Amino acid sequence: MSLSPAFFDYLKARQHLINQALTRFVPRLSGPAARLTEAMHYSLFAGGKRLRPILVLAGAEAVGGEPEPLLPVACALECIHTYSLIHDDLPAMDDDDLRRGKPTCHKAFDEATAILAGDGLLTHAFRLLTHEELEERFPAARILAVIRLISEAAGLFGMVAGQMADLLAEGKKVSPEELFFIHRHKTAALIRASVLAGAMLWGATEESLEKLSQYGWKIGHAFQIVDDILDLTGDEKTLGKPVGSDLEKKKATYPALFGLEGAREEAKKLLNEALEALSPFGTEATPLRDIAYYVLERKL
Amino acid sequence: MSLSPAFFDYLKARQHLINQALTRFVPRLSGPAARLTEAMHYSLFAGGKRLRPILVLAGAEAVGGEPEPLLPVACALECIHTYSLIHDDLPAMDDDDLRRGKPTCHKAFDEATAILAGDGLLTHAFRLLTHEELEERFPAARILAVIRLISEAAGLFGMVAGQMADLLAEGKKVSPEELFFIHRHKTAALIRASVLAGAMLWGATEESLEKLSQYGWKIGHAFQIVDDILDLTGDEKTLGKPVGSDLEKKKATYPALFGLEGAREEAKKLLNEALEALSPFGTEATPLRDIAYYVLERKL
Repeated sequence: MSLSPAFFDYLKARQHLINQALTRFVPRLSGPAARLTEAMHYSLFAGGKRLRPILVLAGAEAVGGEPEPLLPVACALECIHTYSLIHDDLPAMDDDDLRRGKPTCHKAFDEATAILAGDGLLTHAFRLLTHEELEERFPAARILAVIRLISEAAGLFGMVAGQMADLLAEGKKVSPEELFFIHRHKTAALIRASVLAGAMLWGATEESLEKLSQYGWKIGHAFQIVDDILDLTGDEKTLGKPVGSDLEKKKATYPALFGLEGAREEAKKLLNEALEALSPFGTEATPLRDIAYYVLERKL
Repeated sequence: MSLSPAFFDYLKARQHLINQALTRFVPRLSGPAARLTEAMHYSLFAGGKRLRPILVLAGAEAVGGEPEPLLPVACALECIHTYSLIHDDLPAMDDDDLRRGKPTCHKAFDEATAILAGDGLLTHAFRLLTHEELEERFPAARILAVIRLISEAAGLFGMVAGQMADLLAEGKKVSPEELFFIHRHKTAALIRASVLAGAMLWGATEESLEKLSQYGWKIGHAFQIVDDILDLTGDEKTLGKPVGSDLEKKKATYPALFGLEGAREEAKKLLNEALEALSPFGTEATPLRDIAYYVLERKL
């Protein structure tokens, strides 16, 4: 199957919606701290695909929920993702000068500003998750459950732990289990939380949430494997950063452990399992299905 | 007035309670990311006075609320405070090697680990603010309001903005207004939020919250002024870091702008205003009153 032009229209419309919402929900300060929000906006608008916020909306659609009232949640997920990239690019971490073809935040500003911009984005995400507009539409207990989900997926039981494990694995021979730990925590946890957040707010059943959770884990892992493959085979211009940087940093990657062909096979297997998890859903899950193909096929 | 031995017993008992709660509420990971929580615990247990968590409990007591059910909130505030110190000490920020007489997190571990430990503490704070035990005791809408309060005080409308302004002011001549902006955002906002959080959860009236808010701003500003004074006049051993480091970094401080005597006068004035704000409260606000004296008198 290949992706239809209709899907790319959908993607573009959603990206536009989210960009508008980010402009609305992430303020620009004037005065002595204006530089902080300038750096935050610089990185927020540096060409991200908006995968996580789009998943928030698509996850809700799959259970019959309206996307629009979820925009503060969608923006919160993009803030968390963007903060993680800013901190990840710092000299003490991955030390990357370019991201999506543009100078990284600490290059465009400076290290201190980049650290604070990341801290600001992470904190503001939780401000957005308690946004007054959400409380007008959804029961407070459901909003709390979503904050719990996201703070676990982004923190000690998810992304931050994955980043730590990823750094510690550099230059070492890792086992398949360690690699799975890294991918699951670093990448898949926040993607899964994005898929679930909107559906939870709209009161999806436990069964639906369980299926969406499976879908989220699978595309999350597939996403990271494809990322690792692209780092080896991608086009520098499309990639926006030097090819082979994982290899140079001796990062633990799927292709390093299982070869390029093994990695491609695993990504396809995960795609099929993600689609399988969606089988109880009807056409309302079409966007999620298309996104799964998109995750696999972007520049593969 | 001088502080009674009873107050120091109270302080010690509360510090003990909070230390126990931190051990309980901030997990230690085993496995590939164990180093992350090791660094978090290192900084959490590096000799902090626990002012903010104690204020959470004392603020609740002032409106007749029990302190014990608030421990997840108290710990969340200490996590946020500790993350801010870890990031503030980084080479790209204040570049401090010592804090409370011990190596700073990036010295005891490394920069990458320190960045992630800060990120982990900040994210875990929001996990604690959605703790199941809170939801069993308090209405979900009140918990949401507290998360909103704290995410504002720690983020773009508080601490992170204050840190940005503080860094940008280094080496520059700042106006009294800019200094007030820095103190209010960098320090006072989170202290005020600590005073309010527990009282809000226990359903304090708008009038009580308004008075506690005034108290919080006043002691927050007093705290920062005293900090600036101690940096000039303190005992290196008690301080746990070199004296005069603000001067060396050309930081914007109250003594730099108004002289030591002017700073001492302002701190006393703020103490009196803080006590004045507490006048509608009876003996249940005794801890808050004592804490105000304590903020002013610690090693002045």
